[in-house]
Amino acid sequence: MQYLSDDPVRLNTDGTAILAADQRLLPRRTETITLRTAGDVAGAIKTLAVRGAPCIGICAAYGVYISANAHAKEMPELFMQHLRDDAAVIEAARPTAVNLSWAVQRMMKCAAAHAAEPPAGIAAALRSEAERIHTEDIEICRSIAENGLTLLHDGASVITHCNAGALATSRLGTGLGPLLLGASRGMTFHAFVDETRPLLQGARLTAYELHRAGIDTTLMCDNMAAYRMAQGGIDACMVGCDRVAANGDTANKIGTLGLAVLAKHFGVPFYVFCPSPTIDRNCRTGADIRIEQREGSEITALHFAQPVAPEGIRCLNPAFDVTPAALITAIITETGIHRPPYDF
Amino acid sequence: MQYLSDDPVRLNTDGTAILAADQRLLPRRTETITLRTAGDVAGAIKTLAVRGAPCIGICAAYGVYISANAHAKEMPELFMQHLRDDAAVIEAARPTAVNLSWAVQRMMKCAAAHAAEPPAGIAAALRSEAERIHTEDIEICRSIAENGLTLLHDGASVITHCNAGALATSRLGTGLGPLLLGASRGMTFHAFVDETRPLLQGARLTAYELHRAGIDTTLMCDNMAAYRMAQGGIDACMVGCDRVAANGDTANKIGTLGLAVLAKHFGVPFYVFCPSPTIDRNCRTGADIRIEQREGSEITALHFAQPVAPEGIRCLNPAFDVTPAALITAIITETGIHRPPYDF
Repeated sequence: MQYLSDDPVRLNTDGTAILAADQRLLPRRTETITLRTAGDVAGAIKTLAVRGAPCIGICAAYGVYISANAHAKEMPELFMQHLRDDAAVIEAARPTAVNLSWAVQRMMKCAAAHAAEPPAGIAAALRSEAERIHTEDIEICRSIAENGLTLLHDGASVITHCNAGALATSRLGTGLGPLLLGASRGMTFHAFVDETRPLLQGARLTAYELHRAGIDTTLMCDNMAAYRMAQGGIDACMVGCDRVAANGDTANKIGTLGLAVLAKHFGVPFYVFCPSPTIDRNCRTGADIRIEQREGSEITALHFAQPVAPEGIRCLNPAFDVTPAALITAIITETGIHRPPYDF
Repeated sequence: MQYLSDDPVRLNTDGTAILAADQRLLPRRTETITLRTAGDVAGAIKTLAVRGAPCIGICAAYGVYISANAHAKEMPELFMQHLRDDAAVIEAARPTAVNLSWAVQRMMKCAAAHAAEPPAGIAAALRSEAERIHTEDIEICRSIAENGLTLLHDGASVITHCNAGALATSRLGTGLGPLLLGASRGMTFHAFVDETRPLLQGARLTAYELHRAGIDTTLMCDNMAAYRMAQGGIDACMVGCDRVAANGDTANKIGTLGLAVLAKHFGVPFYVFCPSPTIDRNCRTGADIRIEQREGSEITALHFAQPVAPEGIRCLNPAFDVTPAALITAIITETGIHRPPYDF
């Protein structure tokens, strides 16, 4: 990994706890938090210290393992009861990203497959399974990046939303993978990064990752994407996802829908980057996906640290944009309601 | 005026300075700043202490008068030179809102019409002209509100962007006028307020004005408008404007274009509220409108005070949205590039 020294989530040396980069503090501070219990894991996911659908899945898998490890000296029945309780706590942390329940369920299937072994044996199997989920994610991200890179030419300009980079996954990320992989091969890109309100994952995490990887990066507010597309020269929008329904309807960070409508209007291809575990065949359409509603205080107070973006990042900051007459139903002046064609 | 005790801009008692509500501090603090020179006026407009196209026009008009008043004891030639210099300083404060240059030019035409009089006489004529511009704006806003109200039914749900209320104009505002006028007649509305990054005029000013007027108000991030429209039940988008070209292309706060694209996609009428002085017949189309580019630090640091919204305001805060498959060009997984119809 060329721009971050560690995966955002990993086990500590003796395998008793999870070490996670606290994504609430970036880019201002790089701090690692230690998660020792299922409650710690659920808390870290709820508060977005650990975030990004694939990363949540990996953290949840390790979480099930550290629970097994903590209870490994108990009698088998009590051990399994504690494991199930802890798995339920972790699985309930957030509703939208399918990777969370997918990882927990895969871990519990693994535990069931080793049910004949003593608790310590089950714990060992769970550690291997969690490490497999982690390793698979690294390989999946690499393949996604290779596939996505075929969609970009050298010098391409791309708009991204939220964070689908290394911090959200492992190594290359999903939505940012093609940019990071291409850059590592000497290709140049122009990335326009939506800041992604309310929690500013774009400003804090994506701008940080792309900037550190040496990619030409411009930060903008979410409401500036239309202005930038209207200027022309945008080759693609690239985003990650939290859950994809069987028909292709895709849940991702709030604001993705709006960006997709804009992309269609301006004739820009709109690409979703998706590890297979994020496809939920049990969801027929997007109507089956539960959307998490969060506290209003995320909007009314600016929890996430100041300054909100990496130092030296370039910004696009037009104060206004122009709405073509064709998009306006009527213009109301003191003289009346004027409809097109206008005769002012 | 039922919900604010004063117009946002007015003359002080002896007519030597402008008193302006400092819109950078609202809703946290209600403070009045005193503008004594053309430099003060230009500074207040540049820093958005005074903002909103019609309000900028009124402030500029009073600014030309206070310059005349300050120089009224000079010899006529020197007086006119100072007046022209000061008018140029004020006119150059911001480029996009046409009301600024419109008001300054109208004031200078008035000065020219009274050129035969001594400086004190010209100053007196300018004071009357500025007061006329102010009074006209109140009447214009009233008429706009009456016209706009015919577009709304009792119980209507409306999305607004930026601030086109009393703080941006005088009394009823433009884009918010129909809501405020209707509410004063006992009608009920549901207002969804875009927070309007980067300077949060929606969160700080519009939410404050509508909430104080007793209108059912929900604050949301700009990138949530698509989600809210997709839920259905939105009757209209209503915005103000900074300059309207002869063909109807409209410059308004950044983010307006994106909202208009969304409104078209979701079949929601998109209304622009516009005092006649904001129509610029010298602009053929939007391509002729100069868009102000502002400092990136407005995005990377959050200058505008915490908390950013009035206390007790309800928020919409979905963490995700769902993008229909029809808006997605391709979904890229580790297995390849999938295009619709999907066969996962």
